[in-house]
Amino acid sequence: MNQLQFSARTTLDGVLERDFAIGDVPGVLWSPPSFSPGTPLILMGHGGGLHKRAPGLVARARAAVVDDGYVVASIDAPGHGARPRSDEDQRWVDAMMDARKAGEPIGAIVAEFNTSLARRAVPEWQATIDRLQALPEITQDAPIGYTGMTLASTIGIALAAVEPRIRAAIFGGVLAYESLLEDARRITIPVEFLLPLDDAELPREDGLAVFDAFGSQEKTLHAFPGGHFRVPTERFDTRFFPRHLVPSVAGVVG
Amino acid sequence: MNQLQFSARTTLDGVLERDFAIGDVPGVLWSPPSFSPGTPLILMGHGGGLHKRAPGLVARARAAVVDDGYVVASIDAPGHGARPRSDEDQRWVDAMMDARKAGEPIGAIVAEFNTSLARRAVPEWQATIDRLQALPEITQDAPIGYTGMTLASTIGIALAAVEPRIRAAIFGGVLAYESLLEDARRITIPVEFLLPLDDAELPREDGLAVFDAFGSQEKTLHAFPGGHFRVPTERFDTRFFPRHLVPSVAGVVG
Repeated sequence: MNQLQFSARTTLDGVLERDFAIGDVPGVLWSPPSFSPGTPLILMGHGGGLHKRAPGLVARARAAVVDDGYVVASIDAPGHGARPRSDEDQRWVDAMMDARKAGEPIGAIVAEFNTSLARRAVPEWQATIDRLQALPEITQDAPIGYTGMTLASTIGIALAAVEPRIRAAIFGGVLAYESLLEDARRITIPVEFLLPLDDAELPREDGLAVFDAFGSQEKTLHAFPGGHFRVPTERFDTRFFPRHLVPSVAGVVG
Repeated sequence: MNQLQFSARTTLDGVLERDFAIGDVPGVLWSPPSFSPGTPLILMGHGGGLHKRAPGLVARARAAVVDDGYVVASIDAPGHGARPRSDEDQRWVDAMMDARKAGEPIGAIVAEFNTSLARRAVPEWQATIDRLQALPEITQDAPIGYTGMTLASTIGIALAAVEPRIRAAIFGGVLAYESLLEDARRITIPVEFLLPLDDAELPREDGLAVFDAFGSQEKTLHAFPGGHFRVPTERFDTRFFPRHLVPSVAGVVG
């Protein structure tokens, strides 16, 4: 298995930011300058067309470090950010752009493209968890959460369906198609689901269907006017991760 | 206008509880043992068939006092609690019970009954606000919020539509009929809306229609599996009232 290699390292406003790579997958790790094993780890995904250091993602990551003392990891999805886009992915992107320009629905293309990306991204996130847990400051004691909308949710729902190390997740902004609904049904961890109510490309009925599908006993849907580009996170359950990712005490929780 | 008359007064676990009446409308006021003018005031409504001291309401009221230092007022709706039920109201209750027993839809009866109750309850709440603001420990400096589901929302939506002293409100569990939708459209204060997703007597489509109708710039919908009897309030925006009911500083805010 590829090792985790750290490269650049900066500290800004009390947040340590470390670039890393695992094979050809580049990532960023935000954290307090020092922290104990057992500190909660948030995996933060980026939306379609964005990357591991998208401004909104960085702002949320830094807030999670500063406000809650968490560690946050982000990686580029296949064909995103610093990773080259394959010819096959380019064809999907072109088809999506063409459909948008023609005013045609893009749902079927997005579903197919994102499902393919998720199939490739899941083992990359799993390797990221493996390598981060191998770090002496993180270890297997760190409770793990996942958060991210749109493409990041497509990937995160596929990941959480097969990855028991993820203990709580925030998803949202996804279309309802069969493979995603199947994954959602296999998820039983606490879920917070974000639903933009007026997003031309994300029908609210799809969001409700995905929310209904989650097998979780504890799940809550937070819906808001407008599209998925401006999510009023301060209006949701700001204690979601703190309630579910209780820091382990070394030597007590294995 | 009828004066506010206090009667019983008890203090339990740091919460002062005072019974009051304004004419024939009995109420309860929960508060810290002492507090300053400008302390936020929460008007808390009860559900249909319940009363001003329903166990769930009392628990929420005491939590608002203990956790946030708020003052909370509750009154019996017309024909509820200590107030006699009129023959007309009894006929609605009987019709509702008969329909339920026969497995018939109760929506039309509930809409008509609750609209009538709301028409009568709005001036009672307005008199309650008047009389509470006349108390030296409350005054007009106290920012006011309203919270309550089902019947309490029918009443609260009618109240907030005409009463500018209410600055933020939590509603939920209502049916969508024209008079209620009209009131909702007139509301522009921040609203948090609670939507049970699997309530046989409260279709989710109705909740979404009412939420869409609110004229508020800031509104958020929190939906959860199950019916309206077990609302997982800890999963919502627990900072909703603190964000919107900022205590006034005497002499600074008029």
